[in-house]
Amino acid sequence: MTAFILDLDGTLIDSVYQHVLAWHTALRQCGYDLPMWRIHRKIGMSGGILMRALEVELGQGIDESTSKRLEKIHSDEFERLRPTMQPFRGVREMLQTFARNDIPYAIASSGHRKDAEPSLAALGIGDDVPVLTKEDAENPKPDPQLFLKAAQRLRTKSESTVVVGDAVWDMLAARRAHFLGVGLLTGGYAESELTGAGAYRVFADPEQLRQHLYETGVNIRANDNGPSAI
Amino acid sequence: MTAFILDLDGTLIDSVYQHVLAWHTALRQCGYDLPMWRIHRKIGMSGGILMRALEVELGQGIDESTSKRLEKIHSDEFERLRPTMQPFRGVREMLQTFARNDIPYAIASSGHRKDAEPSLAALGIGDDVPVLTKEDAENPKPDPQLFLKAAQRLRTKSESTVVVGDAVWDMLAARRAHFLGVGLLTGGYAESELTGAGAYRVFADPEQLRQHLYETGVNIRANDNGPSAI
Repeated sequence: MTAFILDLDGTLIDSVYQHVLAWHTALRQCGYDLPMWRIHRKIGMSGGILMRALEVELGQGIDESTSKRLEKIHSDEFERLRPTMQPFRGVREMLQTFARNDIPYAIASSGHRKDAEPSLAALGIGDDVPVLTKEDAENPKPDPQLFLKAAQRLRTKSESTVVVGDAVWDMLAARRAHFLGVGLLTGGYAESELTGAGAYRVFADPEQLRQHLYETGVNIRANDNGPSAI
Repeated sequence: MTAFILDLDGTLIDSVYQHVLAWHTALRQCGYDLPMWRIHRKIGMSGGILMRALEVELGQGIDESTSKRLEKIHSDEFERLRPTMQPFRGVREMLQTFARNDIPYAIASSGHRKDAEPSLAALGIGDDVPVLTKEDAENPKPDPQLFLKAAQRLRTKSESTVVVGDAVWDMLAARRAHFLGVGLLTGGYAESELTGAGAYRVFADPEQLRQHLYETGVNIRANDNGPSAI
C-alpha cells in the first residue's frame, strides 16, 4: 500500500509568501538586507540550516542571540499574517480520498509545532494522523530525518512512500530518504526547479494531484478519481 | 550604440512580493480567492490584460466597478508596504556606469505613474531619463507598445536595444518588439522560465548584470566592468 508524507506550508496551506515577508521583516529589523527572491528560495529549510543559508547569502555570521531574535520576529510576523492564509483548493477532498481508500498519510513540516497547529486545525487533521514538526528531528529538511521518522510512524517502506512538497528542499530530502518526490507549483517554484531536484511528477496544486493520484501508482476507486464536486 | 530599456518593479526595486501581497489583499476584499503563486506569475502584466488573466484564473468575470475597486485597494496596499521596498544591490552603480559611458537608457514600467514615482526618486532618476508608465501605452506589457515607445524616445534601433526585466512578460514584450531580452532572477521567476520566454542571458541581479555588461555586446571601459566598490 502506498503511503503519503505531505509537507504543510506551501503544499496544503497557502503560506509561503507570508513566510517570505515575515523573514524579510525579521531580517530588516535585525539590520540585514536580503532581497525577497533570495529569501523565497530558502523557505522550507528550517532551524540551523536556514540560518547557515542566510549567513552565506549575507556574507556574514549570525550570532546565537540574533538568530533567536530573528526566529521570534519571524514567528510573530507570521502569526500577524495568519488571517491571509488558507488551504489550497482540493486539500480537504484529497485528505478525504486518502481516508476513504485507507491510504495512510502523515504531515511533515519543517516549521515549529505551534506555528503548524492553526493550519492543522483549519484542515481538520485529527490525532489519528501522524504530524511531525521541527521538534521531531534533530536535523530538519533538507535532511531526510523528518521524512524517515514520518515513514516509521506510518510503517511504510521506502519503495511505497510518496513525498508531496512545494520546495526543492522537500524533493532533496525525499530523494535522500529514497522516497518518491512529487512536486506542487503552490510554493512559487518553477516546474523545472522541482523536476531538477528530483520530482517524479509536478502538479499545479492538491486538486490536480488528487485527480491524477493514479500517476503515483495508487490504485483507488474510479469515483474518487474525478473532479471535485465542490 | 547599445541602448537599454529597464523594467522598474522587480528589476530595479525589490517590490514584486509586495505586489503579490497587495493583489491578494485586494482580491480577498472583493470576495475572490486566488493563491499567491498564481498571482505572482501575473505580476508585470498590467491594466486590462491583468484583469482578463485574473478572470481566467478565477473562472468568472470581473465587472468594471469591481475592477476599479481592485486597482484602488491594490494601490493603497502597495503604498502601505512601501517602507519594505528598496533598490536591489548594484542598481545605482549600473545606472552610473551607463551615464559615465554615454549608454542611453529608459525606464518602462507597467505600473501607474504615481506608483512608480517614489521608486524613481529613491534611485535618483532625473528628467534626462525617459520614463514610460502604464499611462504611456494603450496596451501595456506583455504588448510591445511600451518598449517600442521607449525605444522611440531613445532613438535606438531594434538591433541595438536591450530590454532588462524580471518577468516572462518583459521577455515576451521584448521578443515581440524584436529587442534583445535579458532576464534577472530578482522577481522570483526561475532561470528556465525566463530563457523559455526568450531571455538571451539571465543574471541574478543588477549587480551581476553590471559586471557582465559585455555579454550583451556593450563596449565599456575596463574600470567600469569590475565588482562594485560598495
